[in-house]
This record gives sequence, structure tokens and C-alpha cells, in this order.
Amino acid sequence: MMKRVTNVLLIALAIVGAMIPASADALPSWNDGKAKQSIVDFVAEVTKEGAPDFVQPGERIAVFDNDGTLWAEQPLYFQFPFAIDRVKALAAQHPEWNQKEPFASLIKGDLEGALAGGEHSLMEIVVATHAGLTTEEFERVVKDWLATAKHPKTGRLLTEMSYQPMVELLAYLRANGFKTYIVSGGGIEFVRAFAERVYGIPPEQVIGSSGKLSFELRDGKPVLVKLPAIDFIDDKADKPVAIQKFIGRRPIAAFGNSDGDLQMLQWTAAGSGARFCLYVHHTDADREWAYDRRSTIGRLDQGLDEATQRGWTIVDMKSDWKNIFAPERK
Amino acid sequence: MMKRVTNVLLIALAIVGAMIPASADALPSWNDGKAKQSIVDFVAEVTKEGAPDFVQPGERIAVFDNDGTLWAEQPLYFQFPFAIDRVKALAAQHPEWNQKEPFASLIKGDLEGALAGGEHSLMEIVVATHAGLTTEEFERVVKDWLATAKHPKTGRLLTEMSYQPMVELLAYLRANGFKTYIVSGGGIEFVRAFAERVYGIPPEQVIGSSGKLSFELRDGKPVLVKLPAIDFIDDKADKPVAIQKFIGRRPIAAFGNSDGDLQMLQWTAAGSGARFCLYVHHTDADREWAYDRRSTIGRLDQGLDEATQRGWTIVDMKSDWKNIFAPERK
Repeated sequence: MMKRVTNVLLIALAIVGAMIPASADALPSWNDGKAKQSIVDFVAEVTKEGAPDFVQPGERIAVFDNDGTLWAEQPLYFQFPFAIDRVKALAAQHPEWNQKEPFASLIKGDLEGALAGGEHSLMEIVVATHAGLTTEEFERVVKDWLATAKHPKTGRLLTEMSYQPMVELLAYLRANGFKTYIVSGGGIEFVRAFAERVYGIPPEQVIGSSGKLSFELRDGKPVLVKLPAIDFIDDKADKPVAIQKFIGRRPIAAFGNSDGDLQMLQWTAAGSGARFCLYVHHTDADREWAYDRRSTIGRLDQGLDEATQRGWTIVDMKSDWKNIFAPERK
Repeated sequence: MMKRVTNVLLIALAIVGAMIPASADALPSWNDGKAKQSIVDFVAEVTKEGAPDFVQPGERIAVFDNDGTLWAEQPLYFQFPFAIDRVKALAAQHPEWNQKEPFASLIKGDLEGALAGGEHSLMEIVVATHAGLTTEEFERVVKDWLATAKHPKTGRLLTEMSYQPMVELLAYLRANGFKTYIVSGGGIEFVRAFAERVYGIPPEQVIGSSGKLSFELRDGKPVLVKLPAIDFIDDKADKPVAIQKFIGRRPIAAFGNSDGDLQMLQWTAAGSGARFCLYVHHTDADREWAYDRRSTIGRLDQGLDEATQRGWTIVDMKSDWKNIFAPERK
């Protein structure tokens, strides 16, 4: 009994530690400046009991886009190299792919030819390579792939291409009673395969695009099989729709980097009480990439205008972030 | 500063209180017997650190059907009287309903005639009466309705027709580190309007059937509008599908009362390690209702056979529950 009480007290002390409002030191990868200050001020506003903008912990919902907001997205959303590697791995089982675009080009190593069909080709590749597996098999395949997949430019593991300042921000918000969600255009099961390890976000707090699933018995054992059909694309105006469906309450803080996140930020901003919206602006061609209004990946055009006009926080990666990527794992 | 530390310590003590493993006394409305014992044994098995079946808190997911499992469902799922009252309230705005079934019969007070079309008529009524509102307007309408809606037989508020033993069970599981979810065939936004108050389950832990939503600007303000189109029916084989989509991990405990919950229980049972499946069997015609294999509402037939054969817990409401309903609020 004594041991249990001691354990409980130790856990309680750990919780007390976690509950003492994290200071700005919780964001060591952020340079002092307007962006960092706006975050710290907002958190102080909504967590100070009795203050006019105090928000109950249960209502402290923060939503984050993933590609380009929590980890890099250049030169191509990381789910696509995964899908392309799957095409190569599965080619022997699909002789028909040798005659069929975009697969034929991919198998020959001609990425440009394969993507000539634009977004439609990409979708076709994703649907064809993600279907057929059970959800558990798919999780295993993604985890195995991520264990070794490296970035073509930096040579680092893709999971180490997460942004250290954002990882710190997630932890800082959680230490202040926020529930952090990912609301990604990426595949829900792809993102779930690493979100807990990389961001500390459990599967039930990851929302994303999804394919249809089918409940089946295989050898008398129930499985969920991924079907070759799109269920939901979690982008633009459908991000607030997904937030309503999965969370059922309006976030008080939203973080994105592209026009695809704009409606999510608008929806968040339109609630009553204190609200926080932030755009990550890719301005650092040396340490990362510099792109915005004319990029095909992660275009930020209308969103940049609206953020400026409404006074939302715009992170200038070059000047606001001391470090960009997570430290390398040894 | 001192005040803050004191507050933090008080909160910590409250947390310590909540963390001390709840004893069987946490289930005072359950009679001693096999059903209650099976629950207490399972919780002990998965929460004892170092034990072979220990489960990390994050993985302690428990899923509950709502109608007939957490609250009553006779003589008709409670969402239907809501929809019927909406037809009456909206009739003046829909003169065409006077000529159109099932609405014409409903307006005349002929429930039987209105339901002659079976499930299809019910769906038509639900779709027509739930659409058009924003999600926030709909929440308000449901809450206002539930504040006074009474049961035709017991005369009690519908929200007091929740089962006290199940409310205790939810709290007992949460006190032992479980995350409790509702996985209901009912409308997700209908259930969310009362789940937190009645069951202590927040909106993001309620999964249900849903209509399509549309993100729109009204007077320049973003809103989510309920469309007259079904998005997802959360029943039978689609319950495990919804669990995968919303939660992304397999539950270790599942609770239902009808064949519509069978696949959810099968999916839960098929995971590795300790698993718990329970059926509420409606056996008490005096205090509640007695129905199973031949009922149109909440039919329990195949599920009863499978539960018996696999040794799942079957709650005999008549003998296992000391009280049925929540105490009346004064």
C-alpha cells in the first residue's frame, strides 16, 4: 500500500511539474521577436484563471496542418516517394502496370513522365499502392519505410525533417492544457504511423485524408481492408468540416502554411473569445526552402494577404527560427 | 506566486484522488455477481503494472454503443421523437409537407401512418428536419428540446433515462485510465449535445452517424451548414470502420446491446492481449423493457448466441442491476 501511495505521489509531482505554466524557455528554438511573443501572450491570456479570455482546458483545442507546417514538404509531399517506392515494390505483382501510365513511367524511373498527368496521376498512384492491405499491414509497411527513408537533398531521415520549433510549440501548448490535433491533407493512416513518435500526437488526434475501408473476415478473423476508393480529401473548406466531424468543437488556435489551410484558420478565428492563427512562411532558402505565392507545393498566396490584413502571426522561418530541423538521432 | 503553487498543489491532490484505483464500490448500482466481477477482474488485469496483460493508459480504449446500452431506446430511439417534434415545428415553413408522406401523416398526428414506410420514412424525416441549420444552431435546438423532452411511459426527462450502472461504469473505467468513447448509430451531433453532461464524454469522443456538412460564408462569417444528405451510417460492420477512422487504434473493451454492435465487439475481441466484451440484455419488463431476438428496436439475436458461445459478459438487467435509471434531478 505504501509503495502505491509513493508511486501515486511521484506521478502527482510529475504532473505538477508539467502543470506549472511553461515559460518562454519552453521554446528555445524560437528567436525572441513578435512571432514568439504572440504565442506566449496568447497562451497566457487563455490559461490565466479569472482573466476575461480564460478558456477551460477541455476547450483548448489547437489544430496543426502537417506538410510544410510540422515537417518539410519539398520537393514533393513525403507520402509520394512512399507511394512511388510501393509501385516499384509491387510492380512484379502487377504486370499490367508496364503498359499503363502513370505506372509505366515510374517503373522506368521516369518521375517527370509519371507526373505529367498532374494531381490526377498522383492520386492514382496513391490509391493503387495503398489499397488491398489491412490497416495493420499498412501501418507496418509505412513504419518500415520511414525507418530508412531519407530526404533526397539533406540525406536525413524524413522523420528528422520535422521542424524543431514546432515540436517545441506542440509540447509547450500541451504543457498548458491544450489538446493538439493534426489536420492534414496527407493520408490519415500514413500520418498516424509516425505522429506519436515524432510529435507526441496520438492516433486519435490525427485527422487526414482517407480511403474507404471494408470490414471483412480473413480466416475467420475480422480485419479492416483498405479499398481502392477515396473516402475524404481533407483540404481547404473540408478542413473545418473534418474538424467538426472528428472533434465537434471549434479550435481556439490554428497553424498552417498554405492556402489549403486558410478555411481552417478562418473557422478558428471566427469563434468568440481569444483566438490564435499562425502561418509558417517558408523564407529560408539556405536552411530549408523559400517559396510562397507561385509554388505548386504548399502555395501561400491568398492566405498571406489575409494573414497580413487580419494581423495573424506570420512566422518568418529565416529570422524567427534559431534551428529548423529536429536534432539528428545518433 | 504562493497562490499559484497552492492552486497547483490542490489540483495535484485532486488528481491523486482520481488516480487511486477505484474499488468495486465505484459500481454501487451493480449487484454482486458474475457480470460485475468480470468487469472488476478485467480492469485489475490490464491496469496492474508488470502483469502479463498490463495495457498502457493510452491504449485503454473503451467503446460504448448508446441507444439501449447507455440509455433506453424503447418504444423508439429518442432521436425520432426529436425529429417528429421538428416536423411539427417546421410545418408552417413547409406547406408542401401537407401533401407529402411521411410528413402529411405526422402533421395529422398519425405516427403509425407516417412510419408505414419503415426505415426509409424514418431516414427521410431525420434528413429533412436536421438539415439547413448551422452546426451551432442545431446544437442549440437539440439542447433546448432535451431540456424538457419527457418519456411517454415513465414521464421522466429523456436524459434521466440513462442507465445509472453504465454511468458508474464509465466513471470507473476513466478512473482507471481508460478513454471512453461512444460509437452510436444515432446522429453524432445529436449525441454530442448531451454526452458530456450525462455521461462525462466530451464531443471528440463521440462517434455516430452523420450528414454531410458544407463550409459557407454567411454575412462574411464562416459557418458549417448541415446538408440534406447522409454522410455515414455508423452501424454494424461500419462501427469498426468508424473506430479505425476516428480513433485509429483497436479498443480493448466494447459494450453494446444489439446485433448492430456485434462487429464492434468482434473487432475488439480479435486484438491480442486481454479483451473485454459485454452485452446489456434487456430482461426487466417491470423496471425497463424485456426484448431481444424478435424486437425491431435493438434486436439481439446473433449477438446473444455469439456472446454465450464465446463467454462474453451478458448483463441480465433484472438480476445484475440494483438500479436502472439515473436518480431524478430535483
